[in-house]
Amino acid sequence: MYLGGLEAGDTNFVCAVGDADGNVLVRERIPTADPQTTMAQVIRFFENFKIVSIGVGTFGSIDLNKESATYGSITASPKRGWAHYPLFKSLSEAVGVPMGITTNGNAAALGELHKGAAQGLDGCLYMTVGTGISAGLIMENQFLHGLTHPEMGHILLRRHPKDAFQGLCPQHRDCLEGLASGPAIEARWGKKLTSLDDDHLAWSIEATYLAQALMHYALIISPKRIILGGAVMKQNQLFPLIRTQLQQLLAGSIDCAELKDQIDSYVVPPALGENAGIIGALILGRETYRQRSGKIA
Amino acid sequence: MYLGGLEAGDTNFVCAVGDADGNVLVRERIPTADPQTTMAQVIRFFENFKIVSIGVGTFGSIDLNKESATYGSITASPKRGWAHYPLFKSLSEAVGVPMGITTNGNAAALGELHKGAAQGLDGCLYMTVGTGISAGLIMENQFLHGLTHPEMGHILLRRHPKDAFQGLCPQHRDCLEGLASGPAIEARWGKKLTSLDDDHLAWSIEATYLAQALMHYALIISPKRIILGGAVMKQNQLFPLIRTQLQQLLAGSIDCAELKDQIDSYVVPPALGENAGIIGALILGRETYRQRSGKIA
Ligand SMILES: Nc1ncnc2c1ncn2[C@@H]1O[C@H](COP(=O)(O)OP(=O)(O)O)[C@@H](O)[C@H]1O
Ligand SMILES: Nc1ncnc2c1ncn2[C@@H]1O[C@H](COP(=O)(O)OP(=O)(O)O)[C@@H](O)[C@H]1O
Ligand SMILES: [Zn+2]
Ligand SMILES: [Zn+2]
Repeated sequence: MYLGGLEAGDTNFVCAVGDADGNVLVRERIPTADPQTTMAQVIRFFENFKIVSIGVGTFGSIDLNKESATYGSITASPKRGWAHYPLFKSLSEAVGVPMGITTNGNAAALGELHKGAAQGLDGCLYMTVGTGISAGLIMENQFLHGLTHPEMGHILLRRHPKDAFQGLCPQHRDCLEGLASGPAIEARWGKKLTSLDDDHLAWSIEATYLAQALMHYALIISPKRIILGGAVMKQNQLFPLIRTQLQQLLAGSIDCAELKDQIDSYVVPPALGENAGIIGALILGRETYRQRSGKIA
Repeated sequence: MYLGGLEAGDTNFVCAVGDADGNVLVRERIPTADPQTTMAQVIRFFENFKIVSIGVGTFGSIDLNKESATYGSITASPKRGWAHYPLFKSLSEAVGVPMGITTNGNAAALGELHKGAAQGLDGCLYMTVGTGISAGLIMENQFLHGLTHPEMGHILLRRHPKDAFQGLCPQHRDCLEGLASGPAIEARWGKKLTSLDDDHLAWSIEATYLAQALMHYALIISPKRIILGGAVMKQNQLFPLIRTQLQQLLAGSIDCAELKDQIDSYVVPPALGENAGIIGALILGRETYRQRSGKIA
């Protein structure tokens, strides 16, 4: 039994075929262009395989209300042509198999939960710190469905006393994404991130902001584990700084071993590296198939 | 069929017997003293009725992990004698019927969801602004079970430019509760809350802080509706101030009618007034009974 997975990203669409264990057997990377061009290539990829279902993790804000007429459409995207694109409808009609769809971040969280750094738990938060900042969340083996999916990258922060950078977010200026994304760090220092020394002030400011974000996530949703991915988190020196600052900020107010002695295994890097999203998409395809066929494992 | 409900509060324990519709038939208010004294009176109250189950909403941090040996115990409380008190165990053994337990805030959210301001939805957030600040949350008809229950009152805020008050939280000093609880407002101005005019700067500062909190809740969990209760929210002039500031802070970043044209019905006062918690406790008792007896309505 083969499953399809699609990770629809800002730069590339990664298509994959895998097995029910989430192993990737075939993979293809298609550049993100306009919807017509990109989707034609995506559909051509999947036509070569007999898959039983498909799972998709996508960029953009998407409509995840199952009752909605525009379920699985991209509601907003700065990418030309993608706003209002009916991703779920066009792809599921073209491939003709059951399809599950969620955000990029949720797919990465699902991948890490089943095959990566959160195995054995019933949920986790996966935060990406790259060009933007966003997060996916699983609680009790479910994605959270509220009014919309979480938009955790835009929360407000207290300024680091040594940081006068104005912030890059077009909507909020100095929200988390506006102050702590890769482009924000580069704009603050006028340098490539990889040219900043490990003990540069940049990292201590970055850790202050990410620790504040984690504090809010811990107080508001209390995830079972927090995984920090995205290219900025390749700077491993950030992890101990973030953990220490998170504990200082919480000041013991969450009385849980995970946030005290066990913080090193609470705030962790991804185990699947760049593959979390595509593996999560395959797992979502598998779960969609099982639900449709009544085979809940 | 009669159900029991208990709202275990900082000042009083409210015991009630009600019907399956959440109507309160008999109610008794017992002062919160030490556990022995208070619980003896609570148990005596329930002994007079033939109830099929009981639901409890309680103060304190509580252990809500069903696998835990201390399930339903109070984990931490500044109240003498209550830290580590096995509330679930002692009450359920004494009354001898199935028991459901959750936080005060979750019980109030459940009451408002079934019988109050969030009827017809599948979830809501209930925030209390009183002596402390806390919140209960229901998503897709479930309480959220993470590492612990939410502790939403202790998030960090950006200062209002005219506010130099140091904050009252023993752990974080100027977190949300430290800056925006009833006692914090009274300490900031050195006056009783009820003596402050409706157009006093106090309310615009208060609204700034509460709006920031709601922004974070909306971005991180996206509740279906937000209900603001507690004695401080009796100041009705706060509602329009909070709604306006929330929209300004979000700057359109959540593309949802609820946060735009429909904000007046998104951020609302409780419909059940002070009864949300006890009605929620009765509903929790009813749901516990239905699950145990296989009667999921
Ligand atoms: N080795 C690195 N260390 C720190 N930051 C990096 C590194 N490589 C890229 N970045 C930053 O990460 C951002 C890209 O993030 P990435 O996660 O690759 O992309 P995206 O978020 O677009 O999927 C760039 O803004 C760049 O500044
Ligand atoms: N009418 C009122 N308007 C504004 N604030 C009030 C009012 N009555 C009481 N308060 C404040 O609310 C706090 C008590 O909140 P309440 O919700 O009654 O209690 P608790 O949070 O202890 O259950 C007090 O600190 C007081 O300052
Ligand atoms: Zn922003
Ligand atoms: Zn605090």
